[in-house]
Amino acid sequence: MSDAPFLPRPPDPHRICGPAPVRALFLRRPQQVLRLFYTEDWRQLAGPLCKHLARTRRPYREVGPEELTRIAGTRHHGGICAVTVARFAEPLPGHALPSHWAANLPQARLLPVLDGIGNPHNLGAIARSAAFFGSRALLLSGDPRQADLSDAAYRTAEGGLEHLEVLRARDLANLLRGMRGRYLTVAAVAAGGAPPEAIPRDRPIALVLGNEEQGMPQATLDACEARITLPGSGMVESLNVAQAAAVLFHALGALPRTTA
Amino acid sequence: MSDAPFLPRPPDPHRICGPAPVRALFLRRPQQVLRLFYTEDWRQLAGPLCKHLARTRRPYREVGPEELTRIAGTRHHGGICAVTVARFAEPLPGHALPSHWAANLPQARLLPVLDGIGNPHNLGAIARSAAFFGSRALLLSGDPRQADLSDAAYRTAEGGLEHLEVLRARDLANLLRGMRGRYLTVAAVAAGGAPPEAIPRDRPIALVLGNEEQGMPQATLDACEARITLPGSGMVESLNVAQAAAVLFHALGALPRTTA
Repeated sequence: MSDAPFLPRPPDPHRICGPAPVRALFLRRPQQVLRLFYTEDWRQLAGPLCKHLARTRRPYREVGPEELTRIAGTRHHGGICAVTVARFAEPLPGHALPSHWAANLPQARLLPVLDGIGNPHNLGAIARSAAFFGSRALLLSGDPRQADLSDAAYRTAEGGLEHLEVLRARDLANLLRGMRGRYLTVAAVAAGGAPPEAIPRDRPIALVLGNEEQGMPQATLDACEARITLPGSGMVESLNVAQAAAVLFHALGALPRTTA
Repeated sequence: MSDAPFLPRPPDPHRICGPAPVRALFLRRPQQVLRLFYTEDWRQLAGPLCKHLARTRRPYREVGPEELTRIAGTRHHGGICAVTVARFAEPLPGHALPSHWAANLPQARLLPVLDGIGNPHNLGAIARSAAFFGSRALLLSGDPRQADLSDAAYRTAEGGLEHLEVLRARDLANLLRGMRGRYLTVAAVAAGGAPPEAIPRDRPIALVLGNEEQGMPQATLDACEARITLPGSGMVESLNVAQAAAVLFHALGALPRTTA
């Protein structure tokens, strides 16, 4: 056994790839960028970003596409890749949502809640749609299947994750019960729920989406006040969860209504 | 030079993978199934399908997951894989839509039209959403970037492609002009179009979706009667095309309205 003191290894940095994700990263948390790599094609976009890095003495370099694939760990790097301090969903402090979320409610009428979405591409796609439709935050459950922020999620989110505060709730069912009154808590289910137009809009909506295969845990379902289902033709069993999320964000009016 | 007569090589058969795609395949065109392979876990689903194959003297076999990966050409085989006669989008006969499509209009108020969607997963995801919301057909343009039916598209469509008649138009702009009166031809654009609620619903809608990066060719845009844009928050530039398609299918009322 070693006598060396226990030093927790810092998490591997994230590789944030693609022009839109990198642009959003520099816009929202430039101080967390450690290094930047890009191909000749992206020299113009990289210019001002490199200037910023030069001021803070962080390295940047133009590389060939193969070297970028090696650095990014994927062929889908889109020609530009930033290495950043890893950012994950932060554990929710205490048993209620942060008080500053309430202040944002008029601007963000929909809070997406993910309970067991395992595919990081689905997480990223949902974050992209959520940001597109005006959400400001994303709540993840403590379900071990639930994906956290990752290289793949950032890439798919096309910058959306930089605009969302992402928290993780250890006891989602309990939290959802505590949110009643301030939010209408709605579980998206494949069958048996109300259609979108039957969901009341008098409060912001916390919309809970469950696992891709098994749906949502019973405790979560029981904690929600309402259930919603998109009526379908019956020709295919269901929508993909990222598609269903986008349709529901739009149908439930994530953007503030100008006529409100 | 060989004196052997020219024998065109038949296209590689499609591998249709996953329980939902295979189930839909047997439901819609069982006569085109050449072989079936499945893992132990899917023995129960495979049972009646194997009986059908036995009657028509087509082979089937239970295999291990690694062998299925080799047969399917992907790890994402979902435990079951059928080898079928390859099916591609058929060239549109003549210069107008087939007359039987008109008969289906009351049941399918939305015709998705893809002009340059290059990613087969996007094609598959759009087909899944289109079938979910009740479309009966899918029109592809002759744009060389446009993906055709493929193993990946079938897998992502989760059976949706079996419920859609898929045609390819050589001259899409001309066809769209000819469709006016019977359809409202609407181009989905990232900016500058009308919001969904401003689009009239007096006719079925042909909704045109363009290339993932470059959008749609100018000739297609010019041929459409209306443009539609989903209003966004501005935090991310756009939705993914498959998400945008699902939102628009729902917002434009692909399913027949019971109150119509």
